[in-house]
Amino acid sequence: MKEKTIITISREYGSGGRRIGEKLALALGIPYCDKAIIDMAAQKSGFDPEFIASQEQKVTGSLLFTLATTGYYTGESLHDQIFRAECHAILEMAVQGSCVMVGRCADYILKGKFDCFNVFIHADEEFCRARAITEYGVKPAEAAKVIEKINRQRARHYQYYSQQVWGAAKNYHMTLDSGRFGIDGSVEILKSMAELF
Amino acid sequence: MKEKTIITISREYGSGGRRIGEKLALALGIPYCDKAIIDMAAQKSGFDPEFIASQEQKVTGSLLFTLATTGYYTGESLHDQIFRAECHAILEMAVQGSCVMVGRCADYILKGKFDCFNVFIHADEEFCRARAITEYGVKPAEAAKVIEKINRQRARHYQYYSQQVWGAAKNYHMTLDSGRFGIDGSVEILKSMAELF
Repeated sequence: MKEKTIITISREYGSGGRRIGEKLALALGIPYCDKAIIDMAAQKSGFDPEFIASQEQKVTGSLLFTLATTGYYTGESLHDQIFRAECHAILEMAVQGSCVMVGRCADYILKGKFDCFNVFIHADEEFCRARAITEYGVKPAEAAKVIEKINRQRARHYQYYSQQVWGAAKNYHMTLDSGRFGIDGSVEILKSMAELF
Repeated sequence: MKEKTIITISREYGSGGRRIGEKLALALGIPYCDKAIIDMAAQKSGFDPEFIASQEQKVTGSLLFTLATTGYYTGESLHDQIFRAECHAILEMAVQGSCVMVGRCADYILKGKFDCFNVFIHADEEFCRARAITEYGVKPAEAAKVIEKINRQRARHYQYYSQQVWGAAKNYHMTLDSGRFGIDGSVEILKSMAELF
């Protein structure tokens, strides 16, 4: 493994990408950055971490929403402010050393600046549905709708900020069907890949 | 490795997907089906193998072109006739046993019928350009244009017959950046994956 190994994981909702990221970081003995990104972005922006977590995948860019929430408008929408704060946090974490980052366009933000291993995780509907229900407590009758909505949100967010297509193989060094390889199988594969990279 | 291992490889032009497929088949000791698909499709359709090879990635569906080439029109365009003949050939090869197939929407044609390992190979522009020049004798000044044209043709062909997006991670169990892992590195990775699958 290289001295500095930065792995970015983009993932479909319910595919287990986040869990794979946590387990991969543990297996490689490097930090898993998730809450830390939110906390650092909160520090940088002055927003509450919980508020950032609830808004970070959105891209409304609405002047009204920004005004109603913050009470002022600086020419930058609320979601752009959150994205900018997260950009700074992600870049700062990458400077610090090896880590696994999940979501938040990290592959795009670090492109050309750090030699990252960029990964996308997806799975079949049945696998994602089952995990949405058992892991996130989504009601079975609503699972398909929730999955579709969150994936659409992620795709829009990624496209808005990166001008790239979310989930296009082209943007990643490797993509994996976690429904086929399983969570632990995917961790094993990515661990060997990270050691090769 | 399963008793029957069918691997389909879709690939960007110049990414080395075809070479990876050949080497992978050799490494796994299973047939590599490329010319054999064309020959069988030729037998089934009555077209010349060379004619099929020159037309198989196209989807003009033009009545005039079909008439001008075959002298008659059966209600099915020439390219649809070629695609249908290749479908039959691909299905017949899959019945016969383990193999590696490259291109021709094989992942889509075999979907739900055979438990295939579906792969997509892509690479950065520099890698594809260099291979287009050295492997296919494309003139350096024309390489970028040729790559773009052939990839657009492949994307259109795949989308036309499968109603799916070519190169979307979602359609494949694994996608690989051969520019990063190299031809032999990609073969190694896919060999271990095929044994796991």
